[in-house]
Amino acid sequence: MYNFEYTNPVKIIFGKESISRLKNEIPQGSRVLMLYGGGSIKGNGVYQQVKASLKDFDHLEFAGIEPNPRYETCMKAIEMVRRENIDFLLAVGGGSVIDATKFVAAGALYSGDDPWDFFSQRYIIEPEDALPIGAVLTLPATGSEMNGNTVVTRESTREKLSFGSPKVLPGFSILDPVTVFSLPDKQVANGVVDAFIHVMEQYLTFPVNAPLQDRFAESILQTLIEEGPKVLGNRQDYDAAANFMWSATLALNGLIATGVPQDWSTHLIGHELTAFHGIDHARTLAVVLPGVMNLKRKSKQDKILQFGERIWGIKEGTIDERIDQTISRTVSFFESLGVPCRLSEYGVPEETIRKISERFKKRGSKLGEKEDIDYSQVEKILFDRM
Amino acid sequence: MYNFEYTNPVKIIFGKESISRLKNEIPQGSRVLMLYGGGSIKGNGVYQQVKASLKDFDHLEFAGIEPNPRYETCMKAIEMVRRENIDFLLAVGGGSVIDATKFVAAGALYSGDDPWDFFSQRYIIEPEDALPIGAVLTLPATGSEMNGNTVVTRESTREKLSFGSPKVLPGFSILDPVTVFSLPDKQVANGVVDAFIHVMEQYLTFPVNAPLQDRFAESILQTLIEEGPKVLGNRQDYDAAANFMWSATLALNGLIATGVPQDWSTHLIGHELTAFHGIDHARTLAVVLPGVMNLKRKSKQDKILQFGERIWGIKEGTIDERIDQTISRTVSFFESLGVPCRLSEYGVPEETIRKISERFKKRGSKLGEKEDIDYSQVEKILFDRM
Repeated sequence: MYNFEYTNPVKIIFGKESISRLKNEIPQGSRVLMLYGGGSIKGNGVYQQVKASLKDFDHLEFAGIEPNPRYETCMKAIEMVRRENIDFLLAVGGGSVIDATKFVAAGALYSGDDPWDFFSQRYIIEPEDALPIGAVLTLPATGSEMNGNTVVTRESTREKLSFGSPKVLPGFSILDPVTVFSLPDKQVANGVVDAFIHVMEQYLTFPVNAPLQDRFAESILQTLIEEGPKVLGNRQDYDAAANFMWSATLALNGLIATGVPQDWSTHLIGHELTAFHGIDHARTLAVVLPGVMNLKRKSKQDKILQFGERIWGIKEGTIDERIDQTISRTVSFFESLGVPCRLSEYGVPEETIRKISERFKKRGSKLGEKEDIDYSQVEKILFDRM
Repeated sequence: MYNFEYTNPVKIIFGKESISRLKNEIPQGSRVLMLYGGGSIKGNGVYQQVKASLKDFDHLEFAGIEPNPRYETCMKAIEMVRRENIDFLLAVGGGSVIDATKFVAAGALYSGDDPWDFFSQRYIIEPEDALPIGAVLTLPATGSEMNGNTVVTRESTREKLSFGSPKVLPGFSILDPVTVFSLPDKQVANGVVDAFIHVMEQYLTFPVNAPLQDRFAESILQTLIEEGPKVLGNRQDYDAAANFMWSATLALNGLIATGVPQDWSTHLIGHELTAFHGIDHARTLAVVLPGVMNLKRKSKQDKILQFGERIWGIKEGTIDERIDQTISRTVSFFESLGVPCRLSEYGVPEETIRKISERFKKRGSKLGEKEDIDYSQVEKILFDRM
């Protein structure tokens, strides 16, 4: 096991009718900005519950945060926060709204010219301070409710970049599984795949003798495999929704990453597909992961075999046959949720692959837990997924 | 799944050579009291490492905290803290030292006459404030390094009682698995059993459709079963020590308790055996748990069968046969570590059972996840374990 540091102070308030507890979590006298997306929260009653709980707070609203939230939109929110002397941000929505809120929280207090610096100069320029954040999660998927990561897309340059900072951790996140009841199939499927692949990025590397972290990762995968289809099949199944929701949060709150190598190549390649074609984040992951598994079958061999055996029960055949079966079972799972796993199914032309490879070449990126996935391997991975 | 609230802000610093990082975690200018036990830290080099890291801090020492730390000893430390204007407490040791430090941290700032109130009037009188705490863990077992619980024994009345408060959570805990290398067999065995039974108290109740929590609990049990004997067999096996250490912490940091019923009857009964006979905490648990499983085999049936199948691979036989096998495999595991599981092996007379039962009668306690274990059932459980 590697040395590690772990701390996660986010307060989780989980369960039925938990949204009303919001009012006890925001410091009295705060001037609150409530940020949300396209208005689905008005259809499912979440907006009304949040407004009821905010009634004693001086508060404003900022609506219209997109899936894959845009820098341009966030900058408008930052302007509003500064203009209106906001001192508490409340994100009501899924990962996109929470991610945008994190950027707004740090961006509003940034003394430099352009808070895009946090993304474009990640690891060099980091937030020194941020406004406090609370979240009401309405879509289990990204884990943003319990981590300090944010991903934002800059429309003008077609860049989708991320940064992470403990300064933008939500102080609290409210998780009411009832919010899952009104989600469309596509969002549930995306959420299951997103959480699944978050686990894979922290698990499918090479063994470092960390059996507990492995088992925790496998526990989340198994639960998503069991509960995901239940949620898709019956949106009113509270327990399935709750199990899905808690699994998605624990998939990316730092816990299963303790003391083990990580490989975020699937995400980094996937982001480019979203940047160029607007494909849903989770779907880009479902496309890319099988390619990474296929290309890195030697260096990831031990963990792919462990994953195949413990998750899919694959024990027979040569090593290559077992790896092939494992990839194919994983793809079948994503497809069973209605998520296509080939670039051609999303109408992505070969030209895009070359553009993406060119970007990684320019950046000089070396992806993967062994930093051995360069632009030419990215190209191979994507051609493998046409 | 039940509704729940979960937050755990303790910063874990885990790994080889992590003790030297102490100096970065204590606020500059603090006046530190370092609390420790019987001096084993002087033999294994931990004392020297801590002292080296504290060299730029104004600090004092308080030695002599016992296993099952005593109220009387803690009160001396509280006196010292007040007299010397200490403003930071550093616990260096196992669960006993950390538990004592928590009591000292809250007790020193208590405005009432006797801080024993936190124990004797638990849930009525709670700490309003506490001094900040840091910990250097030297013995994986209790999980005290990442929770807000403390158990203290009052010698004069032979009471062993507990309280919990977020105010006494350590700000940071340093976990260096190398500290395990110098532990005697008995302490390793006790630590494995203690952590194992912490998991059981949060797992072996009744199903509430919380598959992820179940799997996390089972993951810790499996890892303890695998790694515990490795640590016993080779004290220099760093990975085994690390896996044991991280398992023991996660066994009682609140995570696996989220959204599920709990049953702390084994602990509450076990505490009495320590109070009357000074038996090591973990050993009292190994004695009592099989009795609780046997007596509550009906109400715990589903989870005992799940535990038996998933952990011990027991699938054959009638329900009662499988439960018997499951209890017997669990006992064999404890015994394989050198931990006897019968009261008679500790020389406890029948008279003690009656005294303990009398105590529970007087307190009117109803133990267990269904609050259906009264004094007469406590008596049955203990007679079953003679």
